Amino acid sequence: MNPPVSTTPINVGVIGGAGYAGIELLRLLSRHPLVTIDTVTSQSEAGRIVSEVFPGFRGALDIPFVDPRDATYDQCDLVFLATPPGVAMKEIHLILKSGARVIDLSADFRFKNQDVWEDVYGKKHLASELLSEAVYGLPERYRERIRTARLIANPGCYPTAALLGLLPLLKADAINPERIIINSVSGLSGAGRAAGSRFLFAESQESFKAYGLPRHRHQAEIEQEICSLSERPPGVLFVPHLMPSVRGIHTTIYLEAKRKMDWQALYLDEYQDEPFVDILPFASFPDTRNVRTSNVCRISVHAPNQTQLIVFSVIDNLVKGAAGQAIQNMNIMFGLEEGMGLQQLPSLP
Amino acid sequence: MNPPVSTTPINVGVIGGAGYAGIELLRLLSRHPLVTIDTVTSQSEAGRIVSEVFPGFRGALDIPFVDPRDATYDQCDLVFLATPPGVAMKEIHLILKSGARVIDLSADFRFKNQDVWEDVYGKKHLASELLSEAVYGLPERYRERIRTARLIANPGCYPTAALLGLLPLLKADAINPERIIINSVSGLSGAGRAAGSRFLFAESQESFKAYGLPRHRHQAEIEQEICSLSERPPGVLFVPHLMPSVRGIHTTIYLEAKRKMDWQALYLDEYQDEPFVDILPFASFPDTRNVRTSNVCRISVHAPNQTQLIVFSVIDNLVKGAAGQAIQNMNIMFGLEEGMGLQQLPSLP
Amino acid sequence: MNPPVSTTPINVGVIGGAGYAGIELLRLLSRHPLVTIDTVTSQSEAGRIVSEVFPGFRGALDIPFVDPRDATYDQCDLVFLATPPGVAMKEIHLILKSGARVIDLSADFRFKNQDVWEDVYGKKHLASELLSEAVYGLPERYRERIRTARLIANPGCYPTAALLGLLPLLKADAINPERIIINSVSGLSGAGRAAGSRFLFAESQESFKAYGLPRHRHQAEIEQEICSLSERPPGVLFVPHLMPSVRGIHTTIYLEAKRKMDWQALYLDEYQDEPFVDILPFASFPDTRNVRTSNVCRISVHAPNQTQLIVFSVIDNLVKGAAGQAIQNMNIMFGLEEGMGLQQLPSLP
Amino acid sequence: MNPPVSTTPINVGVIGGAGYAGIELLRLLSRHPLVTIDTVTSQSEAGRIVSEVFPGFRGALDIPFVDPRDATYDQCDLVFLATPPGVAMKEIHLILKSGARVIDLSADFRFKNQDVWEDVYGKKHLASELLSEAVYGLPERYRERIRTARLIANPGCYPTAALLGLLPLLKADAINPERIIINSVSGLSGAGRAAGSRFLFAESQESFKAYGLPRHRHQAEIEQEICSLSERPPGVLFVPHLMPSVRGIHTTIYLEAKRKMDWQALYLDEYQDEPFVDILPFASFPDTRNVRTSNVCRISVHAPNQTQLIVFSVIDNLVKGAAGQAIQNMNIMFGLEEGMGLQQLPSLP
Repeated sequence: MNPPVSTTPINVGVIGGAGYAGIELLRLLSRHPLVTIDTVTSQSEAGRIVSEVFPGFRGALDIPFVDPRDATYDQCDLVFLATPPGVAMKEIHLILKSGARVIDLSADFRFKNQDVWEDVYGKKHLASELLSEAVYGLPERYRERIRTARLIANPGCYPTAALLGLLPLLKADAINPERIIINSVSGLSGAGRAAGSRFLFAESQESFKAYGLPRHRHQAEIEQEICSLSERPPGVLFVPHLMPSVRGIHTTIYLEAKRKMDWQALYLDEYQDEPFVDILPFASFPDTRNVRTSNVCRISVHAPNQTQLIVFSVIDNLVKGAAGQAIQNMNIMFGLEEGMGLQQLPSLP
Repeated sequence: MNPPVSTTPINVGVIGGAGYAGIELLRLLSRHPLVTIDTVTSQSEAGRIVSEVFPGFRGALDIPFVDPRDATYDQCDLVFLATPPGVAMKEIHLILKSGARVIDLSADFRFKNQDVWEDVYGKKHLASELLSEAVYGLPERYRERIRTARLIANPGCYPTAALLGLLPLLKADAINPERIIINSVSGLSGAGRAAGSRFLFAESQESFKAYGLPRHRHQAEIEQEICSLSERPPGVLFVPHLMPSVRGIHTTIYLEAKRKMDWQALYLDEYQDEPFVDILPFASFPDTRNVRTSNVCRISVHAPNQTQLIVFSVIDNLVKGAAGQAIQNMNIMFGLEEGMGLQQLPSLP
Repeated sequence: MNPPVSTTPINVGVIGGAGYAGIELLRLLSRHPLVTIDTVTSQSEAGRIVSEVFPGFRGALDIPFVDPRDATYDQCDLVFLATPPGVAMKEIHLILKSGARVIDLSADFRFKNQDVWEDVYGKKHLASELLSEAVYGLPERYRERIRTARLIANPGCYPTAALLGLLPLLKADAINPERIIINSVSGLSGAGRAAGSRFLFAESQESFKAYGLPRHRHQAEIEQEICSLSERPPGVLFVPHLMPSVRGIHTTIYLEAKRKMDWQALYLDEYQDEPFVDILPFASFPDTRNVRTSNVCRISVHAPNQTQLIVFSVIDNLVKGAAGQAIQNMNIMFGLEEGMGLQQLPSLP
Repeated sequence: MNPPVSTTPINVGVIGGAGYAGIELLRLLSRHPLVTIDTVTSQSEAGRIVSEVFPGFRGALDIPFVDPRDATYDQCDLVFLATPPGVAMKEIHLILKSGARVIDLSADFRFKNQDVWEDVYGKKHLASELLSEAVYGLPERYRERIRTARLIANPGCYPTAALLGLLPLLKADAINPERIIINSVSGLSGAGRAAGSRFLFAESQESFKAYGLPRHRHQAEIEQEICSLSERPPGVLFVPHLMPSVRGIHTTIYLEAKRKMDWQALYLDEYQDEPFVDILPFASFPDTRNVRTSNVCRISVHAPNQTQLIVFSVIDNLVKGAAGQAIQNMNIMFGLEEGMGLQQLPSLP
């Protein structure tokens, strides 16, 4: 049985509100029935009104971006961090001291192992004592721990799509964990608002390429979560690509089955109560268009022969892959209806 | 003072639910707090589940498209028609007889003058006795008549953007009505779901062109409404163009001022209480991105010299230009909060 | 030593000139220094001037599309067939009888094994006696046989990109042929000019999805060519995807290495004299933009660990994947400079 | 009679070769049969190989970008300047002293009147003594003077499209020069390679807006050329817009006719010998797709009523609007076939 649903309003702060994950948080939070946006910070846009920088917010969010150095969080029940790697670990103590709970959309608290983090991100971790406390904010895996968490490490976009595609198989010990190939494709909003000339419309249109080899940062994140469900150390090959689309992540996972199973039943069973995971009919094909601006992850399974499996998984990288999942976590943490403020349907056309 | 706000749920039917205006209606109606979608018809998709044809609706609208010949509207408080020209005038009597009120998104009831309609649409009008009763559903002009209307003729997409840009000037008799140039640009969703190979991604990408001269059908609609505010017959030159974008209408209106005025004050004054018209700062530039998927029309005014005016006006052609405006009209007709179900913000990125 | 280069002009016919491969042939052939386009046929556009249907040809190709039933090829040295599957096998005898050599861009003569063809294409082959004579027109593999061929089966777009990426490894027996995963992504021009509403701009923009499982037709074509270089029957998993781009194929091939090698040297060595295969620096990333409208295939190799290889290969699906490769074959067949008429560089921006 | 055609090769330098106009020059020049690219400079990319920065040039242009401070032009017959405003006027004396002729793609020498230039560009002109010598490089207007010019001021992209649309009417004194409205739309490559986050793919996709009012710099350029053909000072309203396309300029010109004429005959007559101006059938609609990557300007004329004219004119902003027109000028200056190296057809799809 679910706990009773709260209707208490919550005050939130958003740190790093002018990056793409930050704007998306603001877009969703400003229409959330029980949220008041108390404070929004941005280094680059400090002093300007949100709706002047982003005219889509005119009439909906006409407060100024605050300089991060001037911000206080005493009024906040919850603070979202949508900052580049390495910022959250510097700010976290101050925020927690103010009494607010924290959802960090950056990678600072996603790893349990400090050495791995420092190796992947190439710097010393400044708040490593919080790594064990932080809860990896994938509700489909850690919902109960999320409810009571003080600090959520919101998952990366690629890991969200990949892990939701893998979870049922890992839990059922149905695949060889040493041979997992994750072929991912992302829209260009993943590169962020500070992206350079390669990501100009004039250069990105009609272009598709891989990047990130030999080891994209999200690979370690995916491996950590696979490890938690597998006895042997996994062998993951993760190859990200960029497509000429603003939003969307499409993941094609190639796997070796350990045995025959009713794969469709396995997935339907695992996710039957999940509000934001949709298992398509067996052997169908999800597309990124039909999750655009929504918090849904759509998944389908194919068994092209006796030994191989293919799993497709799609999300909107900025919603289920960032801001939407963060709000889902917020709803869980504060006892609200889990889908509150996240009901927008993708548009077609 | 506004009338008291109703909270009574309403049952609606959507005729022609598988075209682009129809799907957009379904997208917005399925998230409207007080609407139940009773019936959706489609000739081409009859018998199929809405969410099978359009997977974005999975879990949100899992009812079948009904064959129009089998549909009844006795349970409906309101029926939307999102059909090609010439269908509504055939179906209207049956629907009205069922007791439902009607919002017709097609052009069948937009003209007061039967001859003009027959000339523009090239066929005989089969329900001309309703032309005088039908209310042109532009809330910013006819809100009071909309409240009590039985039949709404929902405006065309180009006319909505153009007329909202022109209304303050026409009411103030501030421009020469004989020299109005309306240069409009539309996204390709305007061409509809049955569009041919010219509208394939492979041919539309990187293409921009004008069309519709010497006299696009929407010109007569614009002229009728200008006439209603002008003593002299207007001289309108309307040139529509297509751009490689899914959504959006951008209108550039060139005008001759009759006198000097505080143009910004004129616009702010006219639209101060309007929930869906946003006047940008003087001499700024609205873009279509920042109204995408929203019901807002953004307008700005420029006075580049003593005698000329330029007005820019942008909308999402499928929302304020079609389905969103229809729902705004529904809210007015049924005494609901006017913006109910229409609060979605445009996304950036 | 290369044979002496011919400068004799050649007369060509193009059957199916109004499809995307056909138009691309016309675009390239009309600027080829030694080609005269004698006849262009099209069922759908018969009687219309090429440059009326496709205004980009104004002043360059102002001849009419001929009805296929009225066309004769007596004046042609060479006839290109750019027709749907099943047409070439019906027309081939008539054309060969006229004395013309033939390059068939469709799949009708790509398979050596009639049973496989009939299984894959679901119909009886009507010219199976020519299957053994037809030469698979991949110059990097069969150049010498192409020189003297009467009938060329021009390779499919996906197979071209995949096979050029695989050839050096197969020839060196350096990979396990039972575990080849080919993850391909194509632009939407691959769907053709008769594609339906799914490929409208309004529905394709911002969409990415897989398709074609469990067994796309091109898989058998890839397998046939791998077989010719491998002792054991290969195990190929081929998964095509569609991206929101007009042109381009990007192939990511996952392989198991049998041993350690200097992979870069292997590729450089194999393709050192090839005019249209470009091996990028080791561990770099080709993009589709930088082969757009050109006949070049760019390839790079990655060895992320001891046992796995990743090969990236990109082409323009309509040039090296269709019309450009056909013209490369024509140049070889007629003793012309192999790159004649194929020197256009991709544009950026 | 045309002068005899030269076949003497020419050595060229390109200053500012890493901007969009510069790259486009390199793309076209590297395939020009009689051109050797001697020197390419770039401040930002100095020291790097052209084909490393822009992989599309691999095998075609593998020379380094030279630091502008180290470049000499003694070997050059011709130097192209593709630099931001204000650079050419500083470098011009040094280059001319080396004996090279010059085509400046920037605005530095486009104005005859120094005061106008200084007013529009907001700085002092440092080589104003050359303003009267410089020839405005619009071949359709100044071909004879271009032949012998030492210094060409290559026209801006918007002015090229607008002026080619206006020339026949101005020469025939057929329109009221005081009421010229030029509504232009450009692709985003016009914003250049150093454009900021507004021009990222993630923000530009699905966006359309006007900009540049009250007075874009190209307005003065257009006015100067109209003046040269008109007795009275013209009244020009020029409104540029940006569309989500890489390339293309589409111009819609609204005019008042002084009298009735056979407009189509006027245009056909004016441009009958022009290799790069194509007059479409009366009342048709040119699109930007069908001039993409080509040097052609396509024009059509509409006379919607007795007194008004509409002229549509489309070009590729980087070809006829910049690099292609520069090469056309080069061909004229050096007595080459005027269309040499400029025969590429636009691609569809």
